[in-house]
Amino acid sequence: MTRPTPLSGFPEWLPAQRLAEQQVLDRLRRTFELYGFAPLETRAVEPLDQLLRKGETSKEVYTLRRLQAAEGDDEQSLGLHFDLTVPFARYVLENAGKLQFPFRRYQIQKVWRGEKPQAGRYREFLQADIDIVDRDSLPPHYEAEIPLVIGDALRSLPIPAVKIMVNNRKLCEGFYRGLGLEDPEEILRIIDKLDKIGPNAVTQLIVQAGGTEAQAKACLALAEIRAHDASFADAVRALGVEHPLLDEGVSELTAVVETAREHSPGLVEATLKIARGLDYYTGTVYETELAGYEQYGSICSGGRYDNLASAGRDVFPGVGISIGVSRLLGLLFDADALAVSRPTPTAVLVALWSEEERAASNRIAASLRARGIATEVAPVPAKLGKQIRYAERRGIPFVWFPASASIEGGDQVKDIRSGEQVPASSDEWNPPAEDMAPVLR
Amino acid sequence: MTRPTPLSGFPEWLPAQRLAEQQVLDRLRRTFELYGFAPLETRAVEPLDQLLRKGETSKEVYTLRRLQAAEGDDEQSLGLHFDLTVPFARYVLENAGKLQFPFRRYQIQKVWRGEKPQAGRYREFLQADIDIVDRDSLPPHYEAEIPLVIGDALRSLPIPAVKIMVNNRKLCEGFYRGLGLEDPEEILRIIDKLDKIGPNAVTQLIVQAGGTEAQAKACLALAEIRAHDASFADAVRALGVEHPLLDEGVSELTAVVETAREHSPGLVEATLKIARGLDYYTGTVYETELAGYEQYGSICSGGRYDNLASAGRDVFPGVGISIGVSRLLGLLFDADALAVSRPTPTAVLVALWSEEERAASNRIAASLRARGIATEVAPVPAKLGKQIRYAERRGIPFVWFPASASIEGGDQVKDIRSGEQVPASSDEWNPPAEDMAPVLR
Repeated sequence: MTRPTPLSGFPEWLPAQRLAEQQVLDRLRRTFELYGFAPLETRAVEPLDQLLRKGETSKEVYTLRRLQAAEGDDEQSLGLHFDLTVPFARYVLENAGKLQFPFRRYQIQKVWRGEKPQAGRYREFLQADIDIVDRDSLPPHYEAEIPLVIGDALRSLPIPAVKIMVNNRKLCEGFYRGLGLEDPEEILRIIDKLDKIGPNAVTQLIVQAGGTEAQAKACLALAEIRAHDASFADAVRALGVEHPLLDEGVSELTAVVETAREHSPGLVEATLKIARGLDYYTGTVYETELAGYEQYGSICSGGRYDNLASAGRDVFPGVGISIGVSRLLGLLFDADALAVSRPTPTAVLVALWSEEERAASNRIAASLRARGIATEVAPVPAKLGKQIRYAERRGIPFVWFPASASIEGGDQVKDIRSGEQVPASSDEWNPPAEDMAPVLR
Repeated sequence: MTRPTPLSGFPEWLPAQRLAEQQVLDRLRRTFELYGFAPLETRAVEPLDQLLRKGETSKEVYTLRRLQAAEGDDEQSLGLHFDLTVPFARYVLENAGKLQFPFRRYQIQKVWRGEKPQAGRYREFLQADIDIVDRDSLPPHYEAEIPLVIGDALRSLPIPAVKIMVNNRKLCEGFYRGLGLEDPEEILRIIDKLDKIGPNAVTQLIVQAGGTEAQAKACLALAEIRAHDASFADAVRALGVEHPLLDEGVSELTAVVETAREHSPGLVEATLKIARGLDYYTGTVYETELAGYEQYGSICSGGRYDNLASAGRDVFPGVGISIGVSRLLGLLFDADALAVSRPTPTAVLVALWSEEERAASNRIAASLRARGIATEVAPVPAKLGKQIRYAERRGIPFVWFPASASIEGGDQVKDIRSGEQVPASSDEWNPPAEDMAPVLR
């Protein structure tokens, strides 16, 4: 076998990075559970026809085939899921009779997209999603709750400040309809390109789509509105457009912004240019900026969807958001902006005087582990300096010297950073709390 | 969309089962880290030629294709990994310069095999692996350490007793060679079938492979040996066969059995019929029986491998074991033998008097969450009885009544199981420790 090389688009972390990732995931889980979200996983595969319901993502899907499938095998075509929302909607329909609604779940899993890899964009990546779905109808206050959860979750991490930008599809649709524009979805798709192509090109596109210059100007004026509080509503009303759907959207977005302002001032900003590409959103939409990494795009996005999960008369509207964990960590790792204090869980290395004394070193290790202290025994009875260097190279902070003919008195433990060495009993000694496990920083 | 149905071989758990699975995984992780294993994940895909190096598994591999890949696209053929050992060996080769050896890692991930689904056998399933690899050579004491880790990990779970059955490839090969049999791998493959086809058929196969009846009898006598201590070695020697490789194997297996006996009496049994199908094992091999579930086969298997990871002159011998988490949980769930105390993380439901008072209920929830108490706010300001039933249906043990015009005095909290209701402050009240989170049992 020749030395293998990485596959573009399929990132793999080194152990220290995976330790960091795991601590990030543990903190996200912790916050999600504090809000009552239950954990869930779905299978990695979905029937291909389900994955292709939304035509625009079809090009990104990986299809599967059993290598030894016979010609006549009448197996269903399967593909790897490209997000966690579509599988979750399917899961809800499939298990509706066994779930309690409103149902809140979180789901942390890999997804796959056959896109061209680039900075922050992978072919295999980890997402952490939360969603709340209800049967028949979903009260809008859940759209206000999602940013609180995500705010708490992301602020539990040692990462730059996060800003959640929110908008509301009803607000935009109502505004466009109130203006007299007849294809609000087309306008939304045009506005979605604003940051990329600029206001002049947006005006052109709206005019091409049958709008007037004045209508385009009004759409751009709406897209410029940003505010951390309910004052965005005054700015909207100042544009003089009226429509019942606009009122509904303004009222829902006001609740989202004001609920967040009470909980976490500065976290959420009404940002009326936010459109989100995907068609299935029907109410609040979310995007997120990480301070200093704005150019890489949103690291956490989502929204309310009313029509994703339905079978016959059963409908299950939902609202959810997805943290792009791989994107977030990839950017921070590349910038050396996130790490753990040591690349191993091990806090103590028990030295080994001779292979015959391994059982004695094992007993000490077992005694420390029984009290929650991560411990390894030295691989070989090398010279003491070599055993200490073994610990040093790994970032293991303590080396334990078992009592033996080679050492006066009882066991001793050495902090190899300070050099301090003290008598110790494996039934009682504890490392300082900050040395118990690798610390995320 | 019609109501979807499950895909055979792709199990999905209900939320309560996933809560149980997650607690199982947390405990496994905890034990692995106490022994100094660092977490690792590898990508789900490997180049197809790597996956097919071992011909016997080729029929099980799922291959991938981008749906929109053009004819001329010269992309490498990829397949989903069917275990975690092959990807780990590849990872070690790829990252050898960045790892510290001996390197110990654990890896908990899904794997995929296109096999026919049956009880305890899935097409997508979760494995939890630990491995220790070293550069150039690996001391045999690591083969004795693996059962200690697995013993501690599995005994941290509320599951039936586990027995780890161990054997050693050198012992068998040395014995067969000492007997004068020239294709020890073939004999091993035949002995592997003993439980399935019985001793007479095994004798026939050995004779067909060129052995004598007497040699077959000796092989069967070896396969019958079982002992919880070093006495297995006496039984081997009583068969009167001699070979240097046999001595080496006996000595290594003695160390494995005796190390385990000191650590966890009864956990490990030398069981000389254990062969393991895979070709790459070269020393100790492990299989595991779960009391009461023996007929479903091993739930945790592995062994030492010397030749899995090598590139040019670099060789990385290793030893590892893999817990079949999905198989284990599937069997226990089917038997109603593993569950959590409630199907939601939520400990407290904060009642809601009116939609206008939602902010007040949110504040109470935030105050409880800040002290680690998982809390939801009621979805709608329904009648109190209905809110209590909402909590009951989900197994949420406490309902919180905010102070309001509707209630005398300050906040109160009710244990809806006992009916006991007491005044409480959201800054101070705590549920009993056993109600903080769902308990695995």
